[in-house]
Amino acid sequence: MRKYSAILGNLGNTCDRFCGSYKDNPSSKEMLERAGRIEGISGIELVGTWDIRPDNVSEMKKTIEGLGLECVSIIPDLFADKFWSRGSLSCRDKAVRVKAIEYMRKMCDISREMNCKIINLWPGQDGYDYPLQGDLLNERNYLTENIALLANEYPDLKFALEYKAKEPRTHSYLARMADTLLVCLQTGCDNVGVTIDTGHAFLGGENVAESIVLAKQAGNKLFHMHFNDNYKSWDDDMIVGSIHSIEYIEMLYWLDECGYDGWFSMDQYPYRENAVGAISESINWLKKFGNILTKNHKDIAAAIKEGDAVKTSKLTREKLI
Amino acid sequence: MRKYSAILGNLGNTCDRFCGSYKDNPSSKEMLERAGRIEGISGIELVGTWDIRPDNVSEMKKTIEGLGLECVSIIPDLFADKFWSRGSLSCRDKAVRVKAIEYMRKMCDISREMNCKIINLWPGQDGYDYPLQGDLLNERNYLTENIALLANEYPDLKFALEYKAKEPRTHSYLARMADTLLVCLQTGCDNVGVTIDTGHAFLGGENVAESIVLAKQAGNKLFHMHFNDNYKSWDDDMIVGSIHSIEYIEMLYWLDECGYDGWFSMDQYPYRENAVGAISESINWLKKFGNILTKNHKDIAAAIKEGDAVKTSKLTREKLI
Amino acid sequence: MRKYSAILGNLGNTCDRFCGSYKDNPSSKEMLERAGRIEGISGIELVGTWDIRPDNVSEMKKTIEGLGLECVSIIPDLFADKFWSRGSLSCRDKAVRVKAIEYMRKMCDISREMNCKIINLWPGQDGYDYPLQGDLLNERNYLTENIALLANEYPDLKFALEYKAKEPRTHSYLARMADTLLVCLQTGCDNVGVTIDTGHAFLGGENVAESIVLAKQAGNKLFHMHFNDNYKSWDDDMIVGSIHSIEYIEMLYWLDECGYDGWFSMDQYPYRENAVGAISESINWLKKFGNILTKNHKDIAAAIKEGDAVKTSKLTREKLI
Amino acid sequence: MRKYSAILGNLGNTCDRFCGSYKDNPSSKEMLERAGRIEGISGIELVGTWDIRPDNVSEMKKTIEGLGLECVSIIPDLFADKFWSRGSLSCRDKAVRVKAIEYMRKMCDISREMNCKIINLWPGQDGYDYPLQGDLLNERNYLTENIALLANEYPDLKFALEYKAKEPRTHSYLARMADTLLVCLQTGCDNVGVTIDTGHAFLGGENVAESIVLAKQAGNKLFHMHFNDNYKSWDDDMIVGSIHSIEYIEMLYWLDECGYDGWFSMDQYPYRENAVGAISESINWLKKFGNILTKNHKDIAAAIKEGDAVKTSKLTREKLI
Repeated sequence: MRKYSAILGNLGNTCDRFCGSYKDNPSSKEMLERAGRIEGISGIELVGTWDIRPDNVSEMKKTIEGLGLECVSIIPDLFADKFWSRGSLSCRDKAVRVKAIEYMRKMCDISREMNCKIINLWPGQDGYDYPLQGDLLNERNYLTENIALLANEYPDLKFALEYKAKEPRTHSYLARMADTLLVCLQTGCDNVGVTIDTGHAFLGGENVAESIVLAKQAGNKLFHMHFNDNYKSWDDDMIVGSIHSIEYIEMLYWLDECGYDGWFSMDQYPYRENAVGAISESINWLKKFGNILTKNHKDIAAAIKEGDAVKTSKLTREKLI
Repeated sequence: MRKYSAILGNLGNTCDRFCGSYKDNPSSKEMLERAGRIEGISGIELVGTWDIRPDNVSEMKKTIEGLGLECVSIIPDLFADKFWSRGSLSCRDKAVRVKAIEYMRKMCDISREMNCKIINLWPGQDGYDYPLQGDLLNERNYLTENIALLANEYPDLKFALEYKAKEPRTHSYLARMADTLLVCLQTGCDNVGVTIDTGHAFLGGENVAESIVLAKQAGNKLFHMHFNDNYKSWDDDMIVGSIHSIEYIEMLYWLDECGYDGWFSMDQYPYRENAVGAISESINWLKKFGNILTKNHKDIAAAIKEGDAVKTSKLTREKLI
Repeated sequence: MRKYSAILGNLGNTCDRFCGSYKDNPSSKEMLERAGRIEGISGIELVGTWDIRPDNVSEMKKTIEGLGLECVSIIPDLFADKFWSRGSLSCRDKAVRVKAIEYMRKMCDISREMNCKIINLWPGQDGYDYPLQGDLLNERNYLTENIALLANEYPDLKFALEYKAKEPRTHSYLARMADTLLVCLQTGCDNVGVTIDTGHAFLGGENVAESIVLAKQAGNKLFHMHFNDNYKSWDDDMIVGSIHSIEYIEMLYWLDECGYDGWFSMDQYPYRENAVGAISESINWLKKFGNILTKNHKDIAAAIKEGDAVKTSKLTREKLI
Repeated sequence: MRKYSAILGNLGNTCDRFCGSYKDNPSSKEMLERAGRIEGISGIELVGTWDIRPDNVSEMKKTIEGLGLECVSIIPDLFADKFWSRGSLSCRDKAVRVKAIEYMRKMCDISREMNCKIINLWPGQDGYDYPLQGDLLNERNYLTENIALLANEYPDLKFALEYKAKEPRTHSYLARMADTLLVCLQTGCDNVGVTIDTGHAFLGGENVAESIVLAKQAGNKLFHMHFNDNYKSWDDDMIVGSIHSIEYIEMLYWLDECGYDGWFSMDQYPYRENAVGAISESINWLKKFGNILTKNHKDIAAAIKEGDAVKTSKLTREKLI
């Protein structure tokens, strides 16, 4: 039984570098009310500072519980303030790293208060833009050390590292599944794992099914899943299934195969679309793909065993899509 | 009623730069026999020199007619001999250009003998690899002039220019739909138009539906269609529908809308797959997509008029895929 | 003698969808003062509404002239207001198209007042995001018709269409050089041409040198140039020469060869960099590449005539880079 | 003092799937004679079966020593025979895996006879093409187990795994640096490490400098380097420095920083170029980049420490390129 959730901010305003506002600016409370209207949702992810701060923890907790939702993860905001513009946990400037650790501790404390088990860490500003810019060895080491520091301080929380090859930097330190797994292993902490954002994986050139397997082989390191779709060259954050189909079925197959029992969370950016509608569509597509998988599991497993593209095409055409 | 065909060579051996032979080497006759086993096929395309030469025209004609097939196009071979390795109709070496024109005339004469109306011209070696290598203005002019020359000599034939952004050169002179249309317009010949190879269009970053519309707006310049699928970064020449779905439905919609009444020809490269199976699968997928379109034409047209991604997602999810 | 300019807004604040402000918010006047500190600059481009409006035309004119600068182009803002979020001159909603034409007329009138000869038209929101979303034939026709309408009303102005394959839409109607040239030709107006933004061309998979040649062959249609650099997969808007070198030399060669006598304008987006420094660097790189070209023109021309990659490599290594 | 070498086969014939032969077919002996004409070369890499077999080991050894060259690596041929077309060490068919291990042992024995210390393992056919085709968990496990098996049998040899995201398969199991490092770690063998082919890294979206750092952080796992250049979207196997410059300088900087003391080997595919010339050019470019680095090491190190793109641009423009 798959559990579906969404990131609260997906229900709010949208912008890009050309247009500062495609929609209105709802409050976190209004966004939560909208979240309640998404059919099939049972959890919510909150972005630190934007949605949740020391001053509104208890109120948010009450509101979320009142809606019958679970707080799935806290996403610390290490990217929206210009203070982090040259990195946070990996920043060459020690003062910035210290602030980042302090901020992370606040977020971890809030997670405990919220009974939330996952810190979804996306260090979006940690990377570099130009050749000869990154102090690659030091900055990568800072990042790993600081994650280990926090993971050791909060052994009851799971730190799910969300990778993304680029944007907002042209190069991120956590770029793809495998390099993120290396960071996990280098921390030596069992409670450090990975979040796959399907769109991030696509833009990094990954076959998500294989990324899932990599995490399995590295020791059950897949902690969390964010879903969306794109054209594979940029993080377009579109409705699941709007471009790709068979890849999602393959993904769900290998999630099952690898024993994933975490959340299926929607992470979109509906620039010009109705947000409740766009997120609901994603969940409905995932349910559809899940039903196709359930119904044809034996045939799919046999196709994978055999690996004959012509036969698999016939199966896909007649029964899957 | 869509007419399906295939390129004869697709039924033969396959190779790449690492492996010289993934299969056996069937004769043209054996390949034709295989073509006859593809359900739903009524035409065949022949590659010059490989499949058809002055010495075997009448025999090939008889064999093809005997199978109840039509010769859809002749594809002159301006790419397989090292003589063309630095270009053919655009080559900076005049002696090569002269030979290319002579060879093209032979192919045009053969087309007439075969009652074949389309010369499918893919000048794969015409381009450049390195910066500062292409003599861009001259070579592009040679290409246009020589196409015009031939089109004027053979006004009863249609010259369908097949574009492809790269491979075997890192840059081809006929790269995408729009630049190929410019060449068509610059020849001033009504009988010069374009072949879309769906995989070539994908790798060039095109939405094929829009490429079809571009050809329409330039004066009904879409003469021919080659079908296959890929991952959009290279000409993988895979089974139609094995990766993409909705794009093919959108394509078929706009082909109808733009009044395309030509062939739906399969152009694949089944490196490791059974060729008859792989080509049959492509046709079956196209039939499937065609049926989906027919059944939902009104809804699709309405969705395009409205342009609401959430509603279109629902339509796609519930009725199309 | 190359004339250098910059877009005024490049000197202001920067943001992306994650971080609303990487810098401070200078006024247009402060930005102009900064522009004056860029060595070698003699012109400035203004974005409509942001920098220039009916109410500040005469003041801006005075300030710009006072700095000894020329107003190189007006860039109408058809992208920053959510009103245009589903398109402007191509929008399926007639009311939006009418507003877009009205707004364009205001910008054209302002251009005349400013003695500015170029309307640099980047219709960034005109395109589509999802499959089956674009009403491709109609919307493309609206775009062409409306550009023709304006070009006929203002025959003394040059309309330079700036293409870009994507962002903010996943697909733009003016995507690459060749499709934009088709639009130019379809307007039938001599005063409709093209702006190359080098970064836009890179992300569209173009060799800019060849794009310059395409514009030449279509009838001297290159009206304007925007310079920046990127990693070729996204519009990173970086310092010229920070990634690529030889391509800029090839570009400058073909600009000369094709008789380009327009502006060399910098269009960057220095998210985290000092803007005056970043723009100055780009101009300095272009001057460097220009000097290399001047000094080695004969050798470069000979290399292009011969097309031997090994010899060209030697020339490049020993004399160019 | 950098040691330069080349792969022998680079000096022979070239082909692609369209053209079976761009050049003549020299013997291994003729290719060796050509290798001797490349200035600055002191080592050679041999492809198993093609260049070296049990029957010609002693002859090849003598010839190579006679030319004053060292045998740098043996590259087992697990890709050119159709027998491996669906994989070798990872193949789902056990009989194929057994044959692959047997073949590898032969190559390891030959390496010992040649006093060659590196087995450069590129399992080019080990991967998959279509969705739902790869038996991902099993095949990846086979690959790792079989590499471990061989590495344990031959502890005196270094197994350098050469990754490449795609070609000839659309997806390779050893795709990028980080996933290959995971395989290294999973074997538990100190003598299993990685070969970076710069062009493979480019096409996988890597910044090679960072890949070098990743290998360092995983425990000095960089065993070997193959050099070439490309346009970053395909393995064009071009002359080093023909497209990129600053990236190579950054690479050399981090190779030094990470203590790399292995070979700098050329791996190109000069389809239409004179091979001796093309390989010599690559070495000359690397020497040029190396000299630039030596001369400006202090400034470059300072630039990396500071990370200011404008200042680094000035340094690059004035002193590096």
